[in-house]
Amino acid sequence: MSLVQELRSGRCFLCSLDHDSEIVTTITNLAERLGVEVGAVTAIGALKRAEIGYYDQEAHEYRAIEIERPVEISSLIGNISIRDAKPFLHAHATLADSEGNVRGGHLARGTVFAAEVYLQELCGRPPRRRHDPTTDLFLWSETD
Amino acid sequence: MSLVQELRSGRCFLCSLDHDSEIVTTITNLAERLGVEVGAVTAIGALKRAEIGYYDQEAHEYRAIEIERPVEISSLIGNISIRDAKPFLHAHATLADSEGNVRGGHLARGTVFAAEVYLQELCGRPPRRRHDPTTDLFLWSETD
Amino acid sequence: MSLVQELRSGRCFLCSLDHDSEIVTTITNLAERLGVEVGAVTAIGALKRAEIGYYDQEAHEYRAIEIERPVEISSLIGNISIRDAKPFLHAHATLADSEGNVRGGHLARGTVFAAEVYLQELCGRPPRRRHDPTTDLFLWSETD
Repeated sequence: MSLVQELRSGRCFLCSLDHDSEIVTTITNLAERLGVEVGAVTAIGALKRAEIGYYDQEAHEYRAIEIERPVEISSLIGNISIRDAKPFLHAHATLADSEGNVRGGHLARGTVFAAEVYLQELCGRPPRRRHDPTTDLFLWSETD
Repeated sequence: MSLVQELRSGRCFLCSLDHDSEIVTTITNLAERLGVEVGAVTAIGALKRAEIGYYDQEAHEYRAIEIERPVEISSLIGNISIRDAKPFLHAHATLADSEGNVRGGHLARGTVFAAEVYLQELCGRPPRRRHDPTTDLFLWSETD
Repeated sequence: MSLVQELRSGRCFLCSLDHDSEIVTTITNLAERLGVEVGAVTAIGALKRAEIGYYDQEAHEYRAIEIERPVEISSLIGNISIRDAKPFLHAHATLADSEGNVRGGHLARGTVFAAEVYLQELCGRPPRRRHDPTTDLFLWSETD
């Protein structure tokens, strides 16, 4: 049975990230500073460069895909939850180059040109990430 | 004039879907089990394989695009509404392979490797899907 | 320090856009008609044709990418805020053709085949767009 955590809407934040900041760290730090333990995230904008990851489902390891050129954030979807007792961002992104050609995957890192983030806080018992033996990923498990 | 249904925020759910489950059926069943008649959905994660659809706007039929390899769910956006008196998921997805290359469209089917779903319940009179003669799709119409 | 505007959830709208309408104008007009000054937007559906933009981070200008064929809206993420005293939509989209191949970027224009929009109103002091000298874009600044 799929794990389901029921929560309720909390505060909502629109954030414009600093030029030249690192996007994953910046959103994570914002969540921590604002006291958001659980949330849903979407964003658009542009990055100067980025690294996305593909999780090899056989080898159980991430492969890094470096994108060494400016890209539009065509989509960014993610969530905040608790890992190792701190807010943790898990986000995937689709990134489009100057021809509109797109690459996507797990967002590992990106340098902000401009980014507009919508962060919806969720209140209630936060799901916590713990090691999942089937996938070797840190997935949500029951709170205890 | 575009059809507009005003609703209000209800419960919020973060769900981690079971490994090896079929994603469209699982989200639909979750909505039904939780009593969510209307909602907004986003998700990220990875699939072992998937089928997406492209709707031929001239022929009025879906063409199936089979993706027979593991992919990241770079984005998944969808909604829950009522069709044939039951909760119905309509979702589109962007799926990225091991090189970060992406294919997208209507999400017909996918086998979950890992998937994190944010389901926002919307309360009020649910829009209902009915056959639309212009597109041959089942689109929202006024509730009656 | 990143700009952060705290808001709270308002009304929620599910909208089915008119066949043959222009998507950016239609969502903008809906926001204006509904009195939504700030909001978060997601959408799926299909377009008959579209224009997306890539912002050249060196030259500080948009390059237009014309897509002269029917496409699925694989994802659309955006926001509503105030620019020049009126609701303004900023949205990015990922668009998939009949083979599932995808192009993405800033959504400049698109002709609706069918489109389902989720608009979440946000209440409180709206962020306003003002010219940002670093990027030459109109980004959110502190309300005054």
